[in-house]
Amino acid sequence: MMVSSVGYSSSSPIAAVFSVALLLFYFSETTLGAPCPINGLPIVRNISDLPQDNYGRPGLSHMTVAGSVLHGMKEVEIWLQTFAPGSETPIHRHSCEEVFIVLKGSGTLYLAETHGSSPGKPIEFPIFANSTVHIPINDAHQVKNTGHEDLQALVIISRPPIKVFTYDDWFMPHTAARLKFPYYWDEQCVQESQKDEL
Amino acid sequence: MMVSSVGYSSSSPIAAVFSVALLLFYFSETTLGAPCPINGLPIVRNISDLPQDNYGRPGLSHMTVAGSVLHGMKEVEIWLQTFAPGSETPIHRHSCEEVFIVLKGSGTLYLAETHGSSPGKPIEFPIFANSTVHIPINDAHQVKNTGHEDLQALVIISRPPIKVFTYDDWFMPHTAARLKFPYYWDEQCVQESQKDEL
Repeated sequence: MMVSSVGYSSSSPIAAVFSVALLLFYFSETTLGAPCPINGLPIVRNISDLPQDNYGRPGLSHMTVAGSVLHGMKEVEIWLQTFAPGSETPIHRHSCEEVFIVLKGSGTLYLAETHGSSPGKPIEFPIFANSTVHIPINDAHQVKNTGHEDLQALVIISRPPIKVFTYDDWFMPHTAARLKFPYYWDEQCVQESQKDEL
Repeated sequence: MMVSSVGYSSSSPIAAVFSVALLLFYFSETTLGAPCPINGLPIVRNISDLPQDNYGRPGLSHMTVAGSVLHGMKEVEIWLQTFAPGSETPIHRHSCEEVFIVLKGSGTLYLAETHGSSPGKPIEFPIFANSTVHIPINDAHQVKNTGHEDLQALVIISRPPIKVFTYDDWFMPHTAARLKFPYYWDEQCVQESQKDEL
C-alpha cells in the first residue's frame, strides 16, 4: 500500500509530520471528520484528520488540504500529494498558476514551452526536498518520482476548479489534448457542495 | 537575533529543513541569488537560497517563497513566516483568501466576524504543528505565537498584492482602519519589477 511507504526519512525531515498524518489516517479512522466537510467546516483543521485517496492512480496519495468542494475555497486550492517511486502525473497543462513545495524525496519536472503545435521535447529539472517550483501558465508539464523514496509535495493552484488539458505524449498536438473541466479531486462531494449553494 | 532561535525541534520535525534554510542563509550568503530575482528567474528554487527579513517587525522572519514582485506571480503568493514566542501579526482584514499551514510550534488565531461597526471581541482558536487554517474573507484576524518555541507557517494568499486594513484594537471602527495597498513585502524590488513591464 502506498501509504505504508510514507515514512520518516532522515534525509528530509520536513515531511515527518505529514507522514505521521497519513499513518494516523490509517490507524485511527474514528478521528476522521466527514468526507465532505463543508457543512460545519472547522476554521482550524488537523491535517491528520483529512481523508486521502489515490483517485484511481497507482502510486499516488492525494489529500485536499484546502479545496473548493471540501472547504469552499474560490481562489486558491492546496493539495498534499505523495508519489511512490516511478509514479508520475499525466503530461498536462492549465492556465492557472501552480506552485510545488517539495517536502520530501526527489524527482524530475519535465517542462515544455507551449509555442509550437505540440509540447515537444521537454526540459528536465531536478526537484528535491526544500525546493519550490512554479509552473509557467499553459506550459505542458509532468512531475515524476525518479528517486528511490516517496516524493511528497504541497501543491498550490489558483482559480479552482482547474481546467486541465492532458496529453498522451510530448508530441501529441495541442488540438488533440483531452480537456477535463471542471477537474475535481473530490467529485463524490460535488453534489453535496452544490446543494449548499441553493 | 530571530533566526538563531529557529532551530530543529524534536516535537515538530517538519520544520527542520526550513530551519536549516534560514541558518544557511546566514552562514553562506555567497550562495544567495539576486535579492530581486525576476530577471533570469529559475523554475526550480532552493528555499535555502531565498532572502529573509523581518521587515521592521521584531520577532518576525519572512521569506517570500513565491511572490508577485520577486517571481511574477499574479494569482497566488506564498510566504514562509516564523514568529518568535510572543510576537504576532497586526489585527487586520483583507478580501483575498488566506490559508495557513502550521509547520512548527503553536499559537492562537484570533478571529472576529466582521458584521458590526468594529471587529469586536474575537474568538480564539488554538493552532498547532500540522494544522491548517483558512481565514474567512474580510474577517478581522490576528495570529500570535502564544507558545514557547518558534511558530512557523506557510501562508498562502490569493490575488497579490493584497489590500490590507489594519486595526489598533478589536473595537476600532472599520471606518478608521488603516488601508495599505498595494501591500508588498519586497518593496525594494517593486521599481525593478515594474521596469520589466515596460
